[in-house]
Amino acid sequence: MSKYLFGIDLGGTTAKIGLLSEEGRLFEKWEIPTRIENFGRHILPDLAAAIEKGISENGLTKEDILGVGLAVPGAVTNEKDVAVCVNLNGWGGCDIAQEFTAMIGLPVKAVNDANAAALGELWQGGGKGFRNMVLATLGTGVGGGIIIDGKLLVGAHGSGGEIGHMKLYPSLSDAEGRTELCGCGKSGCSEQFASATGVVRLAREMGMTDADSKFGFLSSKDVFDKAKEENELALSVVARFADELGRLLANVSAVADPDVIVIGGGVSKAGDFLLDLVQAAFRKYAFPPCEGTLFALAELGNDAGFYGAAKLFID
Amino acid sequence: MSKYLFGIDLGGTTAKIGLLSEEGRLFEKWEIPTRIENFGRHILPDLAAAIEKGISENGLTKEDILGVGLAVPGAVTNEKDVAVCVNLNGWGGCDIAQEFTAMIGLPVKAVNDANAAALGELWQGGGKGFRNMVLATLGTGVGGGIIIDGKLLVGAHGSGGEIGHMKLYPSLSDAEGRTELCGCGKSGCSEQFASATGVVRLAREMGMTDADSKFGFLSSKDVFDKAKEENELALSVVARFADELGRLLANVSAVADPDVIVIGGGVSKAGDFLLDLVQAAFRKYAFPPCEGTLFALAELGNDAGFYGAAKLFID
Repeated sequence: MSKYLFGIDLGGTTAKIGLLSEEGRLFEKWEIPTRIENFGRHILPDLAAAIEKGISENGLTKEDILGVGLAVPGAVTNEKDVAVCVNLNGWGGCDIAQEFTAMIGLPVKAVNDANAAALGELWQGGGKGFRNMVLATLGTGVGGGIIIDGKLLVGAHGSGGEIGHMKLYPSLSDAEGRTELCGCGKSGCSEQFASATGVVRLAREMGMTDADSKFGFLSSKDVFDKAKEENELALSVVARFADELGRLLANVSAVADPDVIVIGGGVSKAGDFLLDLVQAAFRKYAFPPCEGTLFALAELGNDAGFYGAAKLFID
Repeated sequence: MSKYLFGIDLGGTTAKIGLLSEEGRLFEKWEIPTRIENFGRHILPDLAAAIEKGISENGLTKEDILGVGLAVPGAVTNEKDVAVCVNLNGWGGCDIAQEFTAMIGLPVKAVNDANAAALGELWQGGGKGFRNMVLATLGTGVGGGIIIDGKLLVGAHGSGGEIGHMKLYPSLSDAEGRTELCGCGKSGCSEQFASATGVVRLAREMGMTDADSKFGFLSSKDVFDKAKEENELALSVVARFADELGRLLANVSAVADPDVIVIGGGVSKAGDFLLDLVQAAFRKYAFPPCEGTLFALAELGNDAGFYGAAKLFID
């Protein structure tokens, strides 16, 4: 008999929870608040109560549940040891899987949230049907998740797929004289240009201002909206952005050589308009055998994390 | 009872063959010429004869042999399908493993030669004892081989680990105005600067000439020899080269996050002198959690390929 899975995507504000079949069909999803006070000591008991409720309210028993996957905002090694999570007030730093299993009596596996999103998109989203995928999530920074032959590339230091921190300029003070530091403390990181924040940075440098925004504060959406209206300045900003992102993704392909590159995050709402430009730039820079690498938009949005966490129990 | 393995590294001039134990101990190695005439139709029969001879001359029978690993100068998918090999006069383009098995009555697995070298160095060379490794082979270009959790990253188009073709400059005509194309047909590839050829290119640009060579034609060895003698110009060339290579490897780490980076190829003969400089540059550019990534020199030289080919039969 087919069994059920829970996936949890634990964020700093809420935890998103999904109940899925082994085949990846979603039965129910809901959210609970994340209580980060007292170094996060309420987090696991709150999640345990939510899972118990999810089981009983759906007329299930623990025997029906294959396992609970937990995506967390921090580095995870071996599907169990979670590093201290800055955004959860210092929660983590131990074998969370064992602790949670002791609490709920079900198998638990943990995973980094960006990696979970990649696994989710591979299972039921933009990467469905492929074995080798790169997910680039374009938001404040550039998150990455890499799947090789169906498995996450976690890395020796939990930093596999940290593609936003590739240095695409020759020196620490980059080619165009910027000295603004990346969140990682270094400079010249691709996410300073290839993210949502990066679109706005490029736009301001190229002459766009808050006056170009519908809401009085220039956003990446404003830039793409103006570009779609064929505003010349916005088009040149988007072209520049697509070139940065295309080169980044070509460089990722020269290492990981995926079947498909999936673009997610806020910027991906620009849709096929963005995808076509990025793919053209990618082809310009890609190692020739990789020029035909497919591009797709992420499909699961904020649900990708819990899908991917649940997927940890499916080979 | 412990069994034996053959590893073959098929090159355009000779094939190197090794007889090894399952534990990676080398019993014998020898070479035979590669006859590439007639589209390489002699290649497999010649190799079959060499293996038969290797078995009988060592007092073995086919029952003692676990398998024959074959490293080839071309893309390989699924350990059997070999792409057409340009350097072997068009040989390949079919399931070489099946063809060779039919000829010698032993299990055969095929692998790309750069990937085989990485697998060899992981098994018995500079990466011994690790599960995640990047091999950067610095010769005419920059060859790469990437191992994730003990397995080769082959890639969807057989281009996994083609790190020499990362584009480290913002545009196709690179930041410093060079327009010389890479062998792949594009420009701005890291191997134009981070290879043995790249050392010489940088040296000439920075003012070194053939008069700085012991043999009348400037080589990367000349540059490193002069640098070790504390020649200022040579030292600045080497510093620049190390910076290029360090940034390349930091970018590779932001994708693959290995435990250890192994440096091989002709340039690696510069030894710890080079390694220390590259590691310092790497730390400058690396995503902080990866700064402690280990560095090592390749140890197997030209034997790495047959070691790695044999390793295909060991989990």
